[in-house]
Amino acid sequence: MVQPSAREIEQFIHDAFTSASSEPNFAIEEADGERVRVRFFARPSQLRPGGTISGPVQMAAADLAAWAVVLQKLGLHAAPSVTSNFNMSFLSRPSPGDLLADSELLKLGKRQAVCAVRISSNGALVAHATVTYAIVLHPPT
Amino acid sequence: MVQPSAREIEQFIHDAFTSASSEPNFAIEEADGERVRVRFFARPSQLRPGGTISGPVQMAAADLAAWAVVLQKLGLHAAPSVTSNFNMSFLSRPSPGDLLADSELLKLGKRQAVCAVRISSNGALVAHATVTYAIVLHPPT
Amino acid sequence: MVQPSAREIEQFIHDAFTSASSEPNFAIEEADGERVRVRFFARPSQLRPGGTISGPVQMAAADLAAWAVVLQKLGLHAAPSVTSNFNMSFLSRPSPGDLLADSELLKLGKRQAVCAVRISSNGALVAHATVTYAIVLHPPT
Amino acid sequence: MVQPSAREIEQFIHDAFTSASSEPNFAIEEADGERVRVRFFARPSQLRPGGTISGPVQMAAADLAAWAVVLQKLGLHAAPSVTSNFNMSFLSRPSPGDLLADSELLKLGKRQAVCAVRISSNGALVAHATVTYAIVLHPPT
Repeated sequence: MVQPSAREIEQFIHDAFTSASSEPNFAIEEADGERVRVRFFARPSQLRPGGTISGPVQMAAADLAAWAVVLQKLGLHAAPSVTSNFNMSFLSRPSPGDLLADSELLKLGKRQAVCAVRISSNGALVAHATVTYAIVLHPPT
Repeated sequence: MVQPSAREIEQFIHDAFTSASSEPNFAIEEADGERVRVRFFARPSQLRPGGTISGPVQMAAADLAAWAVVLQKLGLHAAPSVTSNFNMSFLSRPSPGDLLADSELLKLGKRQAVCAVRISSNGALVAHATVTYAIVLHPPT
Repeated sequence: MVQPSAREIEQFIHDAFTSASSEPNFAIEEADGERVRVRFFARPSQLRPGGTISGPVQMAAADLAAWAVVLQKLGLHAAPSVTSNFNMSFLSRPSPGDLLADSELLKLGKRQAVCAVRISSNGALVAHATVTYAIVLHPPT
Repeated sequence: MVQPSAREIEQFIHDAFTSASSEPNFAIEEADGERVRVRFFARPSQLRPGGTISGPVQMAAADLAAWAVVLQKLGLHAAPSVTSNFNMSFLSRPSPGDLLADSELLKLGKRQAVCAVRISSNGALVAHATVTYAIVLHPPT
């Protein structure tokens, strides 16, 4: 199997969620098999009272970064895979700016993949997540 | 302290997030001190490929329902409280319809509140979350 | 399949761990299919500095109570099932006395079972766990 | 404050748990401020049916390794600190042999410390934990 590139995964996810937002709100900056880095662009609409990026936005970022590692490793036909467990520790409030999500594949089994994701903002670690995906493969056509 | 009503909490959260969405996407159906029930209206934009409600939307629902219990119990001046730990087990895919989030306060300490949240869809349990909030109180004016 | 009784599960687990301890340190008080209650007898050796029951003992109690629900529901040939994810929130320090672990089956799928476990001590809730077991069945002989 | 050495932390923890076991079952191999490595000696009594090290033993190892980082960073008067949240993903069954627990401090605040712990066995990663400690300091005498 040829592993998809960072650009291909980015395009694929954008297309899957076109109804959610007309302009892309993230970019996959690196994808090397075991690790993926995703940048999330700061959006005024995602700020919580107090000017910080909300917890749910950080969780969505970690979930997407974990999904991207699964797609990178197994190919785009693993797109139907779904989150089965999600755990996040919030460490400090992010500054108002882009979020970086660095996702690392801890385990790839037949049934599930486990990733550790570190979210940082302006160089500081702001959250740490562990995300388990139940692997579901699209039947080949 | 007078505990805010379900309606007051709903209005307060709507106002806090007006920039995120012009029309309300949830309603607080019950709030009795230790428990809060929140209904999330199904939105086409929140569906994931395959027609199911995405994991991040379920996580945001659980986080908001836990926040609502904190506000109900401590009053609206606890609004600056922030999520410090979030854990969710996804049990089955929700049907395309509204989500109900039932939040139960497990512990209320000086420093933190812990809630268990059950997400259901069409009468079936679809996810279970445990959410810890670090309590931050607005200084009285 | 005939579901094993509380007494049979208790005996089975005792026998599986005989090398760990000569005298039983728990009893299964109730087991009705979806729920199991396990009592853990207080042992001086399990106290932490300060006189409280240690976190790891509470975690072991929750893990065992979740395993007992899986055995109750699927039968003793599900004994090779293993924990795949464990999450616990510690709510308050247990008093020096027995621990009760009430385990509730949230989901039973083909691949995994998810349980919520509440640990209490002298009538007060002291910890809440969510435990996922990967189901492994002994081949029938 | 002078940070305690690996040897001092090891001795301190041994002494605190002398009633639990007469012979030491772990050694702190490294402790450099942000990271601690603990080796747990394999004990026949800790094996689960099937010959693997049980989940609760791995959880106890992670909890202890996180505690050791807190002691290393804050000094031995932080001994009364207690686990407030614990999450572990089990990745593969450990081989019958020693466990290594590598604990990394992700955050040290006034109220809590968060650690990521990786458990390995024979060079393979077998579990990943995130452990939150509520910081409690012994009053100086």
